[in-house]
Amino acid sequence: MSTPWSYRYAQRTQRVKSSAIRELLKLTQNPEVISLAGGLPAPEVFPTQKFREACEKVLKDHGPEALQYSSTEGYLPLREIIAQNTARYGILAQPENVLITSGSQQALDLIGKLLINRGDRLLVEAPTYLGALQAFTVYGADYVSVAVDQDGLCTDLLEEALRSGPKFMYVLPNFQNPGGVTLAEGRRHQLVLLADKYGIPIIEDDPYGQLRYEGEHLPPLVAVDRENLRRDNGYTLGNVIYLSTFSKTLAPGLRLAWIVAPAEVIRKLVQLKQGADLHTATFNQMVAYEVAKDGYLDEHVKLIRQVYRERRDAMLQALAEFFPPEVAWTHPQGGLFLWVTLPVGMDCHELLKAAVAENVAFVPGDAFYVTDDLEARRHFRLNFSYSKPDVIREGIRRLAIAVRQQMEALHFASARA
Amino acid sequence: MSTPWSYRYAQRTQRVKSSAIRELLKLTQNPEVISLAGGLPAPEVFPTQKFREACEKVLKDHGPEALQYSSTEGYLPLREIIAQNTARYGILAQPENVLITSGSQQALDLIGKLLINRGDRLLVEAPTYLGALQAFTVYGADYVSVAVDQDGLCTDLLEEALRSGPKFMYVLPNFQNPGGVTLAEGRRHQLVLLADKYGIPIIEDDPYGQLRYEGEHLPPLVAVDRENLRRDNGYTLGNVIYLSTFSKTLAPGLRLAWIVAPAEVIRKLVQLKQGADLHTATFNQMVAYEVAKDGYLDEHVKLIRQVYRERRDAMLQALAEFFPPEVAWTHPQGGLFLWVTLPVGMDCHELLKAAVAENVAFVPGDAFYVTDDLEARRHFRLNFSYSKPDVIREGIRRLAIAVRQQMEALHFASARA
Repeated sequence: MSTPWSYRYAQRTQRVKSSAIRELLKLTQNPEVISLAGGLPAPEVFPTQKFREACEKVLKDHGPEALQYSSTEGYLPLREIIAQNTARYGILAQPENVLITSGSQQALDLIGKLLINRGDRLLVEAPTYLGALQAFTVYGADYVSVAVDQDGLCTDLLEEALRSGPKFMYVLPNFQNPGGVTLAEGRRHQLVLLADKYGIPIIEDDPYGQLRYEGEHLPPLVAVDRENLRRDNGYTLGNVIYLSTFSKTLAPGLRLAWIVAPAEVIRKLVQLKQGADLHTATFNQMVAYEVAKDGYLDEHVKLIRQVYRERRDAMLQALAEFFPPEVAWTHPQGGLFLWVTLPVGMDCHELLKAAVAENVAFVPGDAFYVTDDLEARRHFRLNFSYSKPDVIREGIRRLAIAVRQQMEALHFASARA
Repeated sequence: MSTPWSYRYAQRTQRVKSSAIRELLKLTQNPEVISLAGGLPAPEVFPTQKFREACEKVLKDHGPEALQYSSTEGYLPLREIIAQNTARYGILAQPENVLITSGSQQALDLIGKLLINRGDRLLVEAPTYLGALQAFTVYGADYVSVAVDQDGLCTDLLEEALRSGPKFMYVLPNFQNPGGVTLAEGRRHQLVLLADKYGIPIIEDDPYGQLRYEGEHLPPLVAVDRENLRRDNGYTLGNVIYLSTFSKTLAPGLRLAWIVAPAEVIRKLVQLKQGADLHTATFNQMVAYEVAKDGYLDEHVKLIRQVYRERRDAMLQALAEFFPPEVAWTHPQGGLFLWVTLPVGMDCHELLKAAVAENVAFVPGDAFYVTDDLEARRHFRLNFSYSKPDVIREGIRRLAIAVRQQMEALHFASARA
């Protein structure tokens, strides 16, 4: 007597649902459709030739090591290079503060596993990164959210949310996904001070930090926190766990990211990672080290910045040219995404249907909210890293047609009502 | 006011402890020590040259695809080749029944996430694979265990354990880690029938199935189950989730394994994997496909069988030559491990200290048990895949010295008592 499998699933999996958005976006795999929905890096800028050389060198010089099991912490030379690179941004980490993960998604999963008890409340931005919600929800997280504006998380609204006793805060300070906004420097200090006051740790997710196209780099929260701690008592790393990745600067297909945290937290995460996948692929870590060392990564990031800046500018220009004045959008200083706000009463799901009919797609905004607020459906996310400038321009032109249609339908409906 | 991190850890992490055995085995990293403790494949048989060609071909012909994000399910041609290969062993899977995982350890983690509620009892073998316990325990599993003998899991003891209502059974039928024993064919049928009778799913972990050095391949549980189901009602896959890996047949440093399961279970696992690491590295999957296709994998497995058979024979011969007659060991028909049983009263932890003094190491048996039974400390595991035959022989010679010392000390102690 075989019991159906669905009766056997653990309680936690009931919260994981197939997303309606995913189903809708499957329609956009039609090659006629210009998809501004995904979050893919531009494949044209992958350093493929450099990878060929690196694979050859690693397998020729270190084949048996590269193909063998290795330590859960990660390949030491790669952790060293990460520690060196992050030092430039004021993050003073030793290799013992660095854990290599199988993409940032695994970092989020391990942090969820480490910190979340069923029913714990987490403080997230509204909107926030969908993948983080996916990782945390499976461990039974509940949420409290704080709005984001043009200067990032509204720290003036933070204290009330902190009083509700969240387990931790999850924040994307640079070129936020999906908002495209950056946390202003003053707010960074306020955020760190409030986190310290209420004893609430910060998870700082920074996948795009190096992809800045204008303005000055701002200090990461982990560095601001460290400055405060140093004044206090000389700790090197305190209240912040920092995440970043090679997915946007080298290539996502390798699944390589890292966590910077106090050594005691890293040790605990290592135990959890050992149970989760033993270690991240040895070969990939050695190849990434070979590609990243001797300054190549820095040079390559300059190229990416140039290509993405051009695409961002193409999108901003097309929006200004084609979109009606009732629609607003963010001006990202970096990253991959831009956030659009529709006039009151418009619905991004209705718009997506109309857009797909025009062969263009985006991600509806409500996917990025933890609440079922109708307000969320006034927004959507556009990606500008993947498509070339002329494709972006054509995509925005098509999208503008759908927007105008929906606005006219809405006015017509209002007039009739 | 920063709260110490340890106060913030989730309840589940309290069950994950740094292992005393790991600490002890760190001593064995001294190059003077012959370690028979690990579970590493022989690096000499990694198909390094073939990997060089495959990396070059994948990056030359499919660079942008190989370095990009890809689907959570895994690279379709690789899933097709896995479905074809497993069909030879009676496992009739379609690609939709196959999920690529980042090593078998991730498969175990995802299964734990899918099925285990805190306090669920799992049925495991005694002894069983340490890594599975690590993966399951974090989700709050409790255990009931059933003894293993020369013919694998003692199915005559199974029914009582099944009556205690375990959530699932976790079984390694071929060349079990750590026991080195293989589940006899008659017992496979009994196991599947009993699982069916009590409605208890089976997780069949088969990392070594292809590494058989003597005797005939036996039908996997998933195939036996399917035969029964077909008689019943024509299902293709029913009560068994089957796991295997490229870690032992190609290379572990790529972290590539797979799950075969009913399509509805795969769909649910895909959702969980998406939250855990988005997908397994695209590049690695494409390279493994390039290496495995056109029959190369089959040829390469023949070479591994030959090399490992020789090493197993060297270990068996050295044990017969150097070990006292009071000590017993298993005769593995395949795989990587052999299991030693000491005379009553001897303690494998004391023996390990003596062994490390003689510059040889193994894994103490109690690591593989879910109970704190003193009986467990009469056993230890030896690996024969990693060291060359002459090193194995020298390792066993040294170990025999430690065994005789301990036996003499014990007799002396008994005489004194």
